Amino acid sequence: MQNTNSGQQNYFLRASLSHVGLRVADPEGMAAYYTRVAGLVREPHDRGDAIRLGWGNGFHALELTRGDGFGHYGLELESAAAVEALADRLAAHGVDSARESHAGEHPPVLAFADADGHRIEAHGPVDRSGEHAADPGRRPVRVHHVTLASPCVADQVDFYERVLGFRVSDRMGDVFTWMRCNQEHHTVAVVAADEPALDHYAYEIGGWADLKTWCDELAAHEVEVTWGPGRHGPGNNLFIMFDDPAGNRVELSCEMERYWDEAAEYAPRRWEPGAKTINLWGPAPRWRDRVSA
Amino acid sequence: MQNTNSGQQNYFLRASLSHVGLRVADPEGMAAYYTRVAGLVREPHDRGDAIRLGWGNGFHALELTRGDGFGHYGLELESAAAVEALADRLAAHGVDSARESHAGEHPPVLAFADADGHRIEAHGPVDRSGEHAADPGRRPVRVHHVTLASPCVADQVDFYERVLGFRVSDRMGDVFTWMRCNQEHHTVAVVAADEPALDHYAYEIGGWADLKTWCDELAAHEVEVTWGPGRHGPGNNLFIMFDDPAGNRVELSCEMERYWDEAAEYAPRRWEPGAKTINLWGPAPRWRDRVSA
Amino acid sequence: MQNTNSGQQNYFLRASLSHVGLRVADPEGMAAYYTRVAGLVREPHDRGDAIRLGWGNGFHALELTRGDGFGHYGLELESAAAVEALADRLAAHGVDSARESHAGEHPPVLAFADADGHRIEAHGPVDRSGEHAADPGRRPVRVHHVTLASPCVADQVDFYERVLGFRVSDRMGDVFTWMRCNQEHHTVAVVAADEPALDHYAYEIGGWADLKTWCDELAAHEVEVTWGPGRHGPGNNLFIMFDDPAGNRVELSCEMERYWDEAAEYAPRRWEPGAKTINLWGPAPRWRDRVSA
Amino acid sequence: MQNTNSGQQNYFLRASLSHVGLRVADPEGMAAYYTRVAGLVREPHDRGDAIRLGWGNGFHALELTRGDGFGHYGLELESAAAVEALADRLAAHGVDSARESHAGEHPPVLAFADADGHRIEAHGPVDRSGEHAADPGRRPVRVHHVTLASPCVADQVDFYERVLGFRVSDRMGDVFTWMRCNQEHHTVAVVAADEPALDHYAYEIGGWADLKTWCDELAAHEVEVTWGPGRHGPGNNLFIMFDDPAGNRVELSCEMERYWDEAAEYAPRRWEPGAKTINLWGPAPRWRDRVSA
Amino acid sequence: MQNTNSGQQNYFLRASLSHVGLRVADPEGMAAYYTRVAGLVREPHDRGDAIRLGWGNGFHALELTRGDGFGHYGLELESAAAVEALADRLAAHGVDSARESHAGEHPPVLAFADADGHRIEAHGPVDRSGEHAADPGRRPVRVHHVTLASPCVADQVDFYERVLGFRVSDRMGDVFTWMRCNQEHHTVAVVAADEPALDHYAYEIGGWADLKTWCDELAAHEVEVTWGPGRHGPGNNLFIMFDDPAGNRVELSCEMERYWDEAAEYAPRRWEPGAKTINLWGPAPRWRDRVSA
Amino acid sequence: MQNTNSGQQNYFLRASLSHVGLRVADPEGMAAYYTRVAGLVREPHDRGDAIRLGWGNGFHALELTRGDGFGHYGLELESAAAVEALADRLAAHGVDSARESHAGEHPPVLAFADADGHRIEAHGPVDRSGEHAADPGRRPVRVHHVTLASPCVADQVDFYERVLGFRVSDRMGDVFTWMRCNQEHHTVAVVAADEPALDHYAYEIGGWADLKTWCDELAAHEVEVTWGPGRHGPGNNLFIMFDDPAGNRVELSCEMERYWDEAAEYAPRRWEPGAKTINLWGPAPRWRDRVSA
Repeated sequence: MQNTNSGQQNYFLRASLSHVGLRVADPEGMAAYYTRVAGLVREPHDRGDAIRLGWGNGFHALELTRGDGFGHYGLELESAAAVEALADRLAAHGVDSARESHAGEHPPVLAFADADGHRIEAHGPVDRSGEHAADPGRRPVRVHHVTLASPCVADQVDFYERVLGFRVSDRMGDVFTWMRCNQEHHTVAVVAADEPALDHYAYEIGGWADLKTWCDELAAHEVEVTWGPGRHGPGNNLFIMFDDPAGNRVELSCEMERYWDEAAEYAPRRWEPGAKTINLWGPAPRWRDRVSA
Repeated sequence: MQNTNSGQQNYFLRASLSHVGLRVADPEGMAAYYTRVAGLVREPHDRGDAIRLGWGNGFHALELTRGDGFGHYGLELESAAAVEALADRLAAHGVDSARESHAGEHPPVLAFADADGHRIEAHGPVDRSGEHAADPGRRPVRVHHVTLASPCVADQVDFYERVLGFRVSDRMGDVFTWMRCNQEHHTVAVVAADEPALDHYAYEIGGWADLKTWCDELAAHEVEVTWGPGRHGPGNNLFIMFDDPAGNRVELSCEMERYWDEAAEYAPRRWEPGAKTINLWGPAPRWRDRVSA
Repeated sequence: MQNTNSGQQNYFLRASLSHVGLRVADPEGMAAYYTRVAGLVREPHDRGDAIRLGWGNGFHALELTRGDGFGHYGLELESAAAVEALADRLAAHGVDSARESHAGEHPPVLAFADADGHRIEAHGPVDRSGEHAADPGRRPVRVHHVTLASPCVADQVDFYERVLGFRVSDRMGDVFTWMRCNQEHHTVAVVAADEPALDHYAYEIGGWADLKTWCDELAAHEVEVTWGPGRHGPGNNLFIMFDDPAGNRVELSCEMERYWDEAAEYAPRRWEPGAKTINLWGPAPRWRDRVSA
Repeated sequence: MQNTNSGQQNYFLRASLSHVGLRVADPEGMAAYYTRVAGLVREPHDRGDAIRLGWGNGFHALELTRGDGFGHYGLELESAAAVEALADRLAAHGVDSARESHAGEHPPVLAFADADGHRIEAHGPVDRSGEHAADPGRRPVRVHHVTLASPCVADQVDFYERVLGFRVSDRMGDVFTWMRCNQEHHTVAVVAADEPALDHYAYEIGGWADLKTWCDELAAHEVEVTWGPGRHGPGNNLFIMFDDPAGNRVELSCEMERYWDEAAEYAPRRWEPGAKTINLWGPAPRWRDRVSA
Repeated sequence: MQNTNSGQQNYFLRASLSHVGLRVADPEGMAAYYTRVAGLVREPHDRGDAIRLGWGNGFHALELTRGDGFGHYGLELESAAAVEALADRLAAHGVDSARESHAGEHPPVLAFADADGHRIEAHGPVDRSGEHAADPGRRPVRVHHVTLASPCVADQVDFYERVLGFRVSDRMGDVFTWMRCNQEHHTVAVVAADEPALDHYAYEIGGWADLKTWCDELAAHEVEVTWGPGRHGPGNNLFIMFDDPAGNRVELSCEMERYWDEAAEYAPRRWEPGAKTINLWGPAPRWRDRVSA
Repeated sequence: MQNTNSGQQNYFLRASLSHVGLRVADPEGMAAYYTRVAGLVREPHDRGDAIRLGWGNGFHALELTRGDGFGHYGLELESAAAVEALADRLAAHGVDSARESHAGEHPPVLAFADADGHRIEAHGPVDRSGEHAADPGRRPVRVHHVTLASPCVADQVDFYERVLGFRVSDRMGDVFTWMRCNQEHHTVAVVAADEPALDHYAYEIGGWADLKTWCDELAAHEVEVTWGPGRHGPGNNLFIMFDDPAGNRVELSCEMERYWDEAAEYAPRRWEPGAKTINLWGPAPRWRDRVSA
């Protein structure tokens, strides 16, 4: 099928989020928090003094290192050859990249930075079998997407779309863009902000029934839900949000819209900025005023 | 069992909410709204120019008349004899009451006013069989409770507790009191406000799964959820709230805590005022600042 | 929001399917079938010798008259004024229409024909409160959409889009087009065929859990499911199909994708013709060979 | 398919339970009980001073008349012709029967007595559309089966099997026999007792999730569950039992095993008498000692 | 908030049950039973010839040693400092305690005996990440509470309440007391008996839907449910009970009432002794005659 | 209970399927497929160059070796003594068998061939605790049954029934026989074919709700469902089928009928060959023409 729809790239990177790296003041304390609250399991194969958390087997979902702010995120590609192709593509666009080898069962890494300087670790297939051992309502199914705060949304989106081969699923005015690199509506989103940062990152959970259990469990752990339960316009996913002790916004998301790019040709939708767009049901959080006011 | 717990009345009125009467500027328009949005059915036996809405058979849940503000609510007692006993009880406390006969299959009514002057229509058993015809997620199971705004919470609670025989289930500081007259945690609640008014009234729905359907259907009808989904501390019920076109706050509630007064003796709990008390999960609405700030 | 997306009409008819009229050799026998198998209730207000079936109160979903083939379908508009506006619009496009008054509580009807000559009865709001009395898994929630077989898909779609103000949600090659006139992905679809006809019509049911009950109940009534359970690409809805005794294909559909035209601007998707498009999960029916082969 | 399995009749009556008639000391009080506790609706078309209860439209499920003990039950056959065939069959076996015409929309009745003298009212198809308006967990889906206490199980079973054309699904020693006349495992069962009586009668409810709601609602109405939730061996259905105020045992049953006699040939199973057989999970009631001890 | 409610301690121990130790004649056989029936996993880090069972990673839930009767149970406190504070508190009340160090990843233990001489092992936080890997309906979520049989309920309760800092949630006459040390209604309960013993211990499971799976799986393993499914008055939890091969009563419990002591002040409820109190739905077991008769 | 029902063996082997061995051209690729698509975990204890996949702990479910066609399957017996008894039984019937010892925690194996020469590995109890860590909708609960294609169904069934002690649950004409060796309706089935082969093998999954998730996940992995969702007549189980990359048909099955041979005596049912028998709901696959046509 020839894709003639304006604004949609013919090249389509096939990838998915493999892990998120956070820099925090107290990695041990944070590891205890995610273990207790989110049921993550400490993996035996730490990288240096980093702490890796996952499902007890297979690849890790979260890496905690000492520091401050967003560290990096991992992109799993479909094959080692796809990593090579990405290296070529980056070179063709004049983007520096480096090949690294990490400890443990980690496949070789191609490291590079996006338009806002966030470090991305691309690599080949990893063992995701641990993701299938999620207790309903008490442990996430997998790490799902990152939303990046950016002072220049257009440049950042251009990098993901034109250089990396993501496709834009939805736009909300000039302040928010959601991009996909697999069947999920978005794996990376970009939202307007004063400084580059991690706006939030998300885990997938099982479904609506689990949201009730999660809200009750979070309350039992004295973790406040800061937004939701609600349903996003772009992506149609159900969600709640809460903050980890370092102030990272964590989303639990489920029932996100799927895209079947092999069978259909899509044009990005354009959403009105506003509270209803980011929560079709109504309530919007105070911290999203730039977007929803 | 002798009840020696301070603050709990030995006399216990057995009653439940039978209907709510609202005075609105446009009863026809409002009837169309509740029919479309909440699936209520217009009952053939209207009282004068009032419009009654229910489930298609049995007693009505909502009565709409032309006017402004809260009209009245109905209390169903267990028998005609219980209505007589209530008449005696009111007389003994110096409260005026009047016997009325209403059109249709309405049983005889004992009308009187509470401490804030809200009209209450007490009556014997009514046909509630229509309540069993609720479509999951698209029509309420029954009308469930009223929360009255009051400039003098203590006096109003004293009237319900000492004169009528309600029991206090929970208190939140001096600003909120929840009272029961059956197995549900509360059928009437009182919240501090500048003027007497209806703070909100509530329908019971089936459960958590239905809340998702309701939120989606309300969005499809362009009705904004103003608060929730959440879980109240007092009553432990799951809820959402929205406003009808006249600005009446409507709650959809489910899975409320039950009290077994025949088998157990309870003392009222005392809750801290605050956002967490009125929503254990976190988010509080802006319009509840007096309570949650 | 200015809509600059090519192929999307600025004018958007707001309507929904109100009922389907079938001409059958044995209306009494067919009424007994739909009553027994689909739980529909015979409405007291028949039109002449027509039989109307619905939910026991409110508007009917199905009208059966003696004859052969597709009869007509009803479109409910948001107001009497909207019906007037549609009359003007039809006149401006040179389409004949007639005002009719029907028996019972039926609002005035504006009758006209689409590009293939199918009769459409447009009218103002009707009482849909009966739709909320659906037993899970044993009675449909409402009548949902019609799919029209057409020897000239392009002309038919043009009529719906340009004259009536439907919007195209999805296209599959030149053989299938799905169009919306409310938040559901489609209310009318058109599929290529040799002769104009009703390809199938659909009822909405509650959700996935009800599909199991429906399949078991249909088996108990010796009604064969001819396709599904499956999930359509266009519309993302879950479905099964079966034939009524006259050979009308009946679909039971749920969880269809919603469109929020007030908040977002959409361009039609283009799907590859093929089995996977019409059932993302796989199996396709033999009777859809023109489309799926 | 030729049925050569010993003990299975070639002739198979196709019928289902249409209603149960109880004789009680206080029909009005009992009607109020079933309305309040089981959500049944009083039907307008009473027979003399009988009270009929159902779903608000269609045929009734329960008829209450003044008196004592089991009154009768109704069997709905597939056609008026099937009623005629049954009349011939009864005559051929020397069983007296009488044709009656009842008030309201009741089809003509063929009345006769079984081997223990219980009155059976056979009739043609009735309107069952009301059965589809059941609220989950608050109203039964339909009346489902009767279990008859008999001083001579073998004779009673012989009458149902040989004369009427029921098929034996299961036997438990000599004390219990379950028989089917449609796809459900049993519509009539016979259990050993000193005197002929109604052992219990059953309503079908939606499923396991509804059992929790029913148990909680019954507790709220101060109705004790006397047995269950449990799962029967014969029939594999989930159940609870409670007594109505006249001491009639009422079962709520769901997920019963289905038989596909058109496609398969079955031989009756033989179960060991014992507690495990009547409840695969364990607990047995004290009142079933003759069977479970 | 100052707590002035009589009978409620100001000091509140924050703890939860970490594991139960049983002494059995055949630890290997018992380990095979719990592995097969309850899906527990044998942990590699046994203490001597003890066998520890858990979820495959993290702390164990059950420890089996050769012997007879109840062994001990573990209490997890929030920090090592909390263990120190408990040691001081015990000393201040003249209760002997000993510090022990156990093999494996077990944190240091503070061992002491309650008023009936049952050994308690208090310790700091343990790895509970394994608890999140529970298959719905086939493995418990966590070990939840112990109910201790006591010849002197008042003394035992006094020890837990005054010395350890538990809070009484409910009392049933003089024969049963339920006490909490976290948000669950009870973690330790005491019931009147002739000799000190373990009355039963409980695992938490996911919810009502899982109870059906558990009952069916237990039947498949030829394990009889001895009581339930039912709903307790005190705690409001749903439950079933069965015996392990050594005769230990095991409860599966879910949906227990939660207490929010940070936000509310509670007074213990007083329940009437009787069958309805221990099962709101009705059926009571023969082995609870002292309580329910 | 004396079993006098013709066609039912008095000797009843108690066994269950422990694993399936497939010979494939690319074991590594196939292991990656089952890990990614079915969430299976690679077990550390491979046998030679075989690859074993399971749940991360306990026994494996699938063994992949280089080669072509069906390899073998494992039967877990209740004890080592039961394996000895089977060895004697085989010898008495003149069937050769060999004792083998396998690497890892595999118990000793008794290897023999069935009437079509398929290798069976019988052994004593294995650790199945890993089976309880199944994520709903994303990993199977356990490996469940094998269906063997046979040029001589009667001989093969005779071997399983008379030599091994299976019991026939159902027959469909001469072309299909289902046999049980535990409470599930079948663990081994035999279907007519030109050559001996593995017709399909099945995993059990949680239930109907999981089928939707599986179908969506398979679509996301571009794996086509070749048949279903549907419900089999024999066994009453819900199912879907898909092919692995080597063309092995894989079934996902749930809610299969259970047999209680300790409590009841069963005779095999006889089903009509036809599409409705193999799918009560209707659709049949093209590859089952010999059976369903």
